[in-house]
Amino acid sequence: MGEWLEGRTLAEKIKEEIGKEVAYYREKIKKVPKLVGILVGDDPASKIYLSTKAKNCERLGISSEIFYLPENTSFNELAKKINKLNKDDEVDGILVQLPLPSHLDTFEVICAISPEKDVDGFHPHNLGKILHNEEGLRACTPLGIIELLKSNNIPLEGTRVVVIGRSLIVGKPLAAMLTNENATVTICHSKTRNLSEVASEADILIVAIGKPAFVTSNFVKEGAVVVDVGVNRVSDRNKIKELFGDNKEKEEQFEKKGYIIIGDVHPEVINKASYLTPVPGGVGPLTVAMLLKNTLKAFKKRNNLE
Amino acid sequence: MGEWLEGRTLAEKIKEEIGKEVAYYREKIKKVPKLVGILVGDDPASKIYLSTKAKNCERLGISSEIFYLPENTSFNELAKKINKLNKDDEVDGILVQLPLPSHLDTFEVICAISPEKDVDGFHPHNLGKILHNEEGLRACTPLGIIELLKSNNIPLEGTRVVVIGRSLIVGKPLAAMLTNENATVTICHSKTRNLSEVASEADILIVAIGKPAFVTSNFVKEGAVVVDVGVNRVSDRNKIKELFGDNKEKEEQFEKKGYIIIGDVHPEVINKASYLTPVPGGVGPLTVAMLLKNTLKAFKKRNNLE
Repeated sequence: MGEWLEGRTLAEKIKEEIGKEVAYYREKIKKVPKLVGILVGDDPASKIYLSTKAKNCERLGISSEIFYLPENTSFNELAKKINKLNKDDEVDGILVQLPLPSHLDTFEVICAISPEKDVDGFHPHNLGKILHNEEGLRACTPLGIIELLKSNNIPLEGTRVVVIGRSLIVGKPLAAMLTNENATVTICHSKTRNLSEVASEADILIVAIGKPAFVTSNFVKEGAVVVDVGVNRVSDRNKIKELFGDNKEKEEQFEKKGYIIIGDVHPEVINKASYLTPVPGGVGPLTVAMLLKNTLKAFKKRNNLE
Repeated sequence: MGEWLEGRTLAEKIKEEIGKEVAYYREKIKKVPKLVGILVGDDPASKIYLSTKAKNCERLGISSEIFYLPENTSFNELAKKINKLNKDDEVDGILVQLPLPSHLDTFEVICAISPEKDVDGFHPHNLGKILHNEEGLRACTPLGIIELLKSNNIPLEGTRVVVIGRSLIVGKPLAAMLTNENATVTICHSKTRNLSEVASEADILIVAIGKPAFVTSNFVKEGAVVVDVGVNRVSDRNKIKELFGDNKEKEEQFEKKGYIIIGDVHPEVINKASYLTPVPGGVGPLTVAMLLKNTLKAFKKRNNLE
């Protein structure tokens, strides 16, 4: 049986370091980083994500502000708001919470953010820098995954990595970043044939597709490292029973909330993998830590503190 | 034995179409696209490349100009020149011939070009657009390779593609573009272990590493499509004999020039592959055609002709 590769402890450690650095700059130059979040509409999950980010900022002494814009905000109104924040010297990081209402073009909105304040790392300029292997603001989840692997002394150079999922947020930037880390990377998606066969070539298998418990043992090479990026709500009691058997903890969670959160990887995989990240508590906490790290990075760069 | 997948005929066809479109705009709006090349220093190969591009422009009615700057041009001088061209409304495409002298930072120079005039497709903004799967100016060699495969009805969706080489000019943008084409792409490089084994998983194998005849039959799955992007000079008569046996044509070329051009793929591979691109005459001609196509595209976009 493999080990659980949990991310909470590492995330806490990283946040502690960020907090110390923020305190240092507050003392030294009487300035702290500022992160601004924008939410268009009132998707409840997005609200929770944003307020978690804001709470984390508060805890570390990072200044933060959230703008709630109505669902029917036009592109021009949103771009105007973003542009004001681009020009605001107090603001170091701007994040527009995704997904956006369907009348807004996500690409156009992302392009409106100044690349130097793009702490989500989704601006094409920042994504292109990955291909150049040039320093820049990198997408948070990929950053967190690489940090998690490295901090557990899991080697990347020369290993075969399979990434399942080609999203802009995880799969695509991660594949390019791992290539820069000298891994041999294959990126799989809905059109990949013989997916389980391809996946089982991997020394490190990373799954980000949003399909609960989709990746079963036959996708996994004996002793592989498996990173589960999925966050899926399951509210079907039978499904939970099927996945976890008589698991008291999961049952209690289900009773309390009416659903449980599970990843893209079937829990049985722990028996075949050398490491598996739990969901929740694996990659998730690192994503937030990396957002804060990016905000500090943008602040330092903008204030010539490097 | 496989078929040679030559690129000259297709390149000619594409150029003919470009020429017609240029003639149409000349007639209709009294304007033609303009491409400007910049050469820093006097590398003989770079000079030849640039003059080939200029000659092609002339043939198609595209206006072109080449600026020859001295080897010791500073970054600021070069950036000033580029900036002037960025602002020049007559100029649609700007290309800085690579490689640059070592005192210049290639990334910084590429960033100085306006993305809308970046006909080489190396600006991070344009590279990032590939990850967004958004329309933009794409790198010419990857564009040419995809065009060559498609025009020969070689399917991409669902196939396994292995790209050997992770250069900014070919491997990295190509891998991302092929992912957008629904292929399952693996990108290999100098740190890849068991390279020949990984390569032989490919339905389509693309080689861009700059090592003469490096890829031999054991890298190739029976019936795979092999695309050879390498352009290497070999001036060792024994090596040529070893590669081609008693080949009159190659011998004559060698006698005439003192070297022959060979690719990264060993000629024996034609016996195992279903298709192999020749060198020269495979991918090369398409790269130039795609540069001209990008120039036309930039012209149309800038003049709202789409």
